[in-house]
Amino acid sequence: VSAPVDDRGLLLGDGLFETILYEVGKLHHFGGHADRMIRGCVVLGLPAPDAQVLEIVAMDAVQAAGLADRRAAVRLTWTAGSGGRGLDRPDAPHPRLIASAAPSPRPTTPASLVTVSIRRNEGSPASRIKSLNYLDNVLARRTARQAGADEALMLNNRGEIAGAAVANLFWFEGDALLTPSLECGVLDGIMRGLIIAEARRVGIQVTEIAAFPERLAGARGMFLTNSLIGVRAVESLDGMIMDTHRMSALLSSPT
Amino acid sequence: VSAPVDDRGLLLGDGLFETILYEVGKLHHFGGHADRMIRGCVVLGLPAPDAQVLEIVAMDAVQAAGLADRRAAVRLTWTAGSGGRGLDRPDAPHPRLIASAAPSPRPTTPASLVTVSIRRNEGSPASRIKSLNYLDNVLARRTARQAGADEALMLNNRGEIAGAAVANLFWFEGDALLTPSLECGVLDGIMRGLIIAEARRVGIQVTEIAAFPERLAGARGMFLTNSLIGVRAVESLDGMIMDTHRMSALLSSPT
Repeated sequence: VSAPVDDRGLLLGDGLFETILYEVGKLHHFGGHADRMIRGCVVLGLPAPDAQVLEIVAMDAVQAAGLADRRAAVRLTWTAGSGGRGLDRPDAPHPRLIASAAPSPRPTTPASLVTVSIRRNEGSPASRIKSLNYLDNVLARRTARQAGADEALMLNNRGEIAGAAVANLFWFEGDALLTPSLECGVLDGIMRGLIIAEARRVGIQVTEIAAFPERLAGARGMFLTNSLIGVRAVESLDGMIMDTHRMSALLSSPT
Repeated sequence: VSAPVDDRGLLLGDGLFETILYEVGKLHHFGGHADRMIRGCVVLGLPAPDAQVLEIVAMDAVQAAGLADRRAAVRLTWTAGSGGRGLDRPDAPHPRLIASAAPSPRPTTPASLVTVSIRRNEGSPASRIKSLNYLDNVLARRTARQAGADEALMLNNRGEIAGAAVANLFWFEGDALLTPSLECGVLDGIMRGLIIAEARRVGIQVTEIAAFPERLAGARGMFLTNSLIGVRAVESLDGMIMDTHRMSALLSSPT
């Protein structure tokens, strides 16, 4: 379980990953994760993995970690492989697939958020795919933890709401549900897409928008989504207590 | 020569690196590189390496690669090490040091540049340090190569000039030398700092500024700097031919 030190994922963050929820013998939304990784390869100009191979490798990782009967997070990493000269990849890159699994308990409490100063880069396509460049998110989370909060609220360079360090953000205004649009420098989250589709299916109006953080003062409930936590209510933002009452219906949605 | 696959440098780009020029038995500007890595650790909240250890490991890498009598690039990588839960580091991170060396011929021709659409993230402290998050730069370089150029000109999200994918940018206006300020989302380059100091020493006015790319139409000569190439003249930008005449004095400066 090691990678060569000339791997471009390690040297330059040249690659992608997915984090997939495993429960009771099943990978959740595996197709969505595989599709996103394949779309990410188009953005990066990398050869794409085979979805069936990814699934086999993911299940093997669960077995190897002894987590077959547990709730687990499976991580699949697809790097640009070895070689090239500096930034330039070799003419024919040979990507490297790395898989691992770890226990993943579901958070049982609502999240507290603080706004941090580190911005999402809306001017890079990498902000919308799940690339290996997560240092901004690591620093954002670290800042939030140091402030005593669970998660960071990140804005982009235009000052618009982007999301949390490792989750998408939604909020209610009246009966409508809002979430930052991908153009704001937002990861195209699997759970984000499922929540949008599910909300629309049950007749809730969903708007993807560019919005400034002042707008959140009028929110009637706010929540985070990602593949591992599913949906998690936000209880406070910068010390302002949020209404978590509205979350009950969506919190019970399937992940 | 491998790293564990749970290394946070590989998983999240959580770490730093330096690329140091080696020639005729000597690491160039080693002190500047070690200082920058140590300052970067402060930004990231990581334990810092010992400069003497870095130097020994760098020279060992040159020897191990059989490059003692060659011009070589030494790469030192300092990752946040293994462990932690997702974005959160372990309480006491144990960074990992990785070193390698490769031949590094000096480019002998001036560079052609094209402006790319991928932006530098001026809203992140990581844009000013040499972190492992180089995917934006990889994509910028790739775009430039596909357009038939040698290097990319990157702007930031405000649309200001930032620099090349893997070099700082300077240009002349009349007798004055200009370069984007670090606040524009610019790497604090070792060679950038040396050129600014050397230019001022010989009486050239140097201004670090936030400037829009239209300003480059009035440039009387432009060049790139980094630790491996030293100073490299720019012969064209987006097909516009640049005056390379003014470069001669600085091109002969010591690297």
